[in-house]
Amino acid sequence: MSTLYEQLADAVAQRILDGQLQPGERLPSVRQTCTQAQVSPATVFQAYDLLESRGMIESRPRSGFYVRKPLRRAAAPALAVTPRADSTPVAVSELVFDVLNSTRDRDVVPLGSAFPSPTLFPLERLARDGARAMRQLAPQALTTELTSGNARLREALRARSVRHGLRVGHQDPIITNGAMEALNLCLQAVTQPGDVVAVEAPTFYAALQALERLHLRVVELPTDPQSGVDPDGLAEVIQRHRVAACWLMPNFQNPLGALMPHARKQAVMRVLNQAGIPVVEDDVYGELHHGSARPLPLKAFDTEGQVLYCSSFSKCLAPGYRVGWALGGRYSHMVQKLKMMSSLATSVPSQLALAEYLEEGGYDRHLRQLRKTLATSLAQLRQWVLQHFPKGTRVSRPAGGYFLWVQLPDGIDTLRLHQLALAQGISVAPGALFSADQRFQSALRLNGGHPQDPRVLEAVKVLGRLISQLTA
Amino acid sequence: MSTLYEQLADAVAQRILDGQLQPGERLPSVRQTCTQAQVSPATVFQAYDLLESRGMIESRPRSGFYVRKPLRRAAAPALAVTPRADSTPVAVSELVFDVLNSTRDRDVVPLGSAFPSPTLFPLERLARDGARAMRQLAPQALTTELTSGNARLREALRARSVRHGLRVGHQDPIITNGAMEALNLCLQAVTQPGDVVAVEAPTFYAALQALERLHLRVVELPTDPQSGVDPDGLAEVIQRHRVAACWLMPNFQNPLGALMPHARKQAVMRVLNQAGIPVVEDDVYGELHHGSARPLPLKAFDTEGQVLYCSSFSKCLAPGYRVGWALGGRYSHMVQKLKMMSSLATSVPSQLALAEYLEEGGYDRHLRQLRKTLATSLAQLRQWVLQHFPKGTRVSRPAGGYFLWVQLPDGIDTLRLHQLALAQGISVAPGALFSADQRFQSALRLNGGHPQDPRVLEAVKVLGRLISQLTA
Repeated sequence: MSTLYEQLADAVAQRILDGQLQPGERLPSVRQTCTQAQVSPATVFQAYDLLESRGMIESRPRSGFYVRKPLRRAAAPALAVTPRADSTPVAVSELVFDVLNSTRDRDVVPLGSAFPSPTLFPLERLARDGARAMRQLAPQALTTELTSGNARLREALRARSVRHGLRVGHQDPIITNGAMEALNLCLQAVTQPGDVVAVEAPTFYAALQALERLHLRVVELPTDPQSGVDPDGLAEVIQRHRVAACWLMPNFQNPLGALMPHARKQAVMRVLNQAGIPVVEDDVYGELHHGSARPLPLKAFDTEGQVLYCSSFSKCLAPGYRVGWALGGRYSHMVQKLKMMSSLATSVPSQLALAEYLEEGGYDRHLRQLRKTLATSLAQLRQWVLQHFPKGTRVSRPAGGYFLWVQLPDGIDTLRLHQLALAQGISVAPGALFSADQRFQSALRLNGGHPQDPRVLEAVKVLGRLISQLTA
Repeated sequence: MSTLYEQLADAVAQRILDGQLQPGERLPSVRQTCTQAQVSPATVFQAYDLLESRGMIESRPRSGFYVRKPLRRAAAPALAVTPRADSTPVAVSELVFDVLNSTRDRDVVPLGSAFPSPTLFPLERLARDGARAMRQLAPQALTTELTSGNARLREALRARSVRHGLRVGHQDPIITNGAMEALNLCLQAVTQPGDVVAVEAPTFYAALQALERLHLRVVELPTDPQSGVDPDGLAEVIQRHRVAACWLMPNFQNPLGALMPHARKQAVMRVLNQAGIPVVEDDVYGELHHGSARPLPLKAFDTEGQVLYCSSFSKCLAPGYRVGWALGGRYSHMVQKLKMMSSLATSVPSQLALAEYLEEGGYDRHLRQLRKTLATSLAQLRQWVLQHFPKGTRVSRPAGGYFLWVQLPDGIDTLRLHQLALAQGISVAPGALFSADQRFQSALRLNGGHPQDPRVLEAVKVLGRLISQLTA
């Protein structure tokens, strides 16, 4: 449980992230806040100190506390890059494999990791729930509830999906081995080898790997670091290429953190539905919004059953359990068939632990706490990066998730940085992982989902020094 | 725990299955057996009665008990069929999907199922072991031990593989979502879309599905129902086709139950190594031998690292846990990469339950009991089929596993039988599932891995009547 002043700080941070308090705006005075929040002046001061240390507010002598304006050099948080016009085959898997393997050492500062800290999850309760559910399971259920998954878990997910504005067909959801399998099955359901698939630029490396594995070609879409894929750019690409499918992450895109606004999602769906192009939607970060409201998935705007929605519990509840799911829309039957053909079924102990947990309640409470923790932690990391990375660095300002996308001054090779950092016990995710060509080699993704302790601060300082050396 | 007379019956059955007692040979007299086994004459009589009811022995008036000769109409237990000469694309998945889905009702007599009865497994102990292991797990292990799997489980499997005569490379084993994923990854590691893959005829439908999913072509190999793939036939096929890989199940092949003899495995490996052709080996039934000795996998004869060995715990210890593994030989790196690209990792709770179970000991004791149960149960089913199916029926006599391969008189369509039987609450696996063409449409696979209770006997009688109707 957090202390009173931390709770107060979180509440104020939430109002800043929601835009209720704008950059440059004066915060309520200490006295006002004391009255409103029914706390002592000392508590308010502690809360404001905390927010200041996180870089979210600043104190002005004899005037009070103000919401901090973004640092000037971060004003354009990250640059959109014009993708190359032609479609290309993909071959990133060897690089991804090497980089991921090299960062799995437990002693490495995990700034390159894709997962938030496993200490943020209710692992003990999940283990207890799983044990109870397995004891009560009828043995027959182990082999009768095969491909689509456990009935209780499917029911819980169905209810939750409907709450998120999604229409769920009677064959959905299909439970999978994590979102990764869901995405792979969905992509295969709508493509044939040699087809062209449109993705964001930069994009999650798993999308590139899936394309490579299925012998597909990639075309990259103009993608704004704040608001995601541009509908006009998408329409142009569709005119130039025979695009068989899109793979998009409209909510807190990995690695950019971009959030596609409501209207943009509608526009994108209009373009895709008109062209009859299916889209594989990766929504694994959708629950990790820092603002109050959960952004709608693209699938909420899908009137034609053309969105194959994928998500999982790996980033918000149960890492390592490898439970994800797909809502296949009009392609559900094919997705189910491919699931049967490629891995038959998903682990029953994992599914049951999650079913039991969801039925018991408390998931939303856990999520609220997790979001606050991640928002705070990411803001802190961002602050440190702005302080210790050299001039010319641009940093994204995501409204959800736990990734920072950092663009270093041109010419700095982040693959080289990755190697140098690793030698000092620090991992980063170099930009080269996130594209089929070389346009992001000066960028990197940092993971802000771990406790921002002195060890991380020290790592940021080391990275800053290494970058300066590479510049020189 | 079984009674004294059941134990005695099992011991005698084992000697028959091992060939120490030959068909037609006289069993030791009741008096001899009393002395040897230190039991009462009543116990011996009960044991012999039991074996007689299973069709394994017969009593001859005033002479004693004899090992029963195979019934004449089963003398040629199943016919080998000449496969068609050309390679073909594959499209069985829709049929497999329909049939499997239709047989998942818990109230159906599961003669068409692929799994033995889930009551045969130590599910409570596994649940307990899993819960304990999860409580003791360091959270970090959830995300650091990703693609290849849990270190404890991998170590236990490594030790066991070495005991089975396999050389295990330092990157092996790779833990997968059941054998199904292992087989799919291994097949993809050694093929490109359009390649030709050689399989047994008939073959496990998952092989055909995997080929279909990966856009591969199939060529079927001459396969003896008792001794599996013929090395000369294999050599011929390799001369005629550019075979990129084989997919074989040398131990208790599904659906035939064929066991490739030691010398035949050596010969097959010689042919394949000479041609430099990799082979994906499915050994999920290898532990379920009815005789005393575990047959060696093909991989034990592999000097070139060309065998990609796959197995799982789904059929012999933990159905529904979805834990399998691959020994990728010289292709390990590729298999690992594909695992990362398609599902990233395998469920940690499932892996840990198995690691804990294997470390604690008792797996071999469980297997011994399971083998006895399955041998007895399969012999009983076989006996019933021979009694109640019409003349002209041929039935395999497997030395392991729990499947019977039944060839009905020509012209009987087992897909039709499947539909008629299902309407009466009985499932069967029609021959059409096991081949890319129509040569096995009069055959079916029956599952003898469930308790042979009066309900199953009644189902066999119903099937017999349905078959007679279809003949007429």
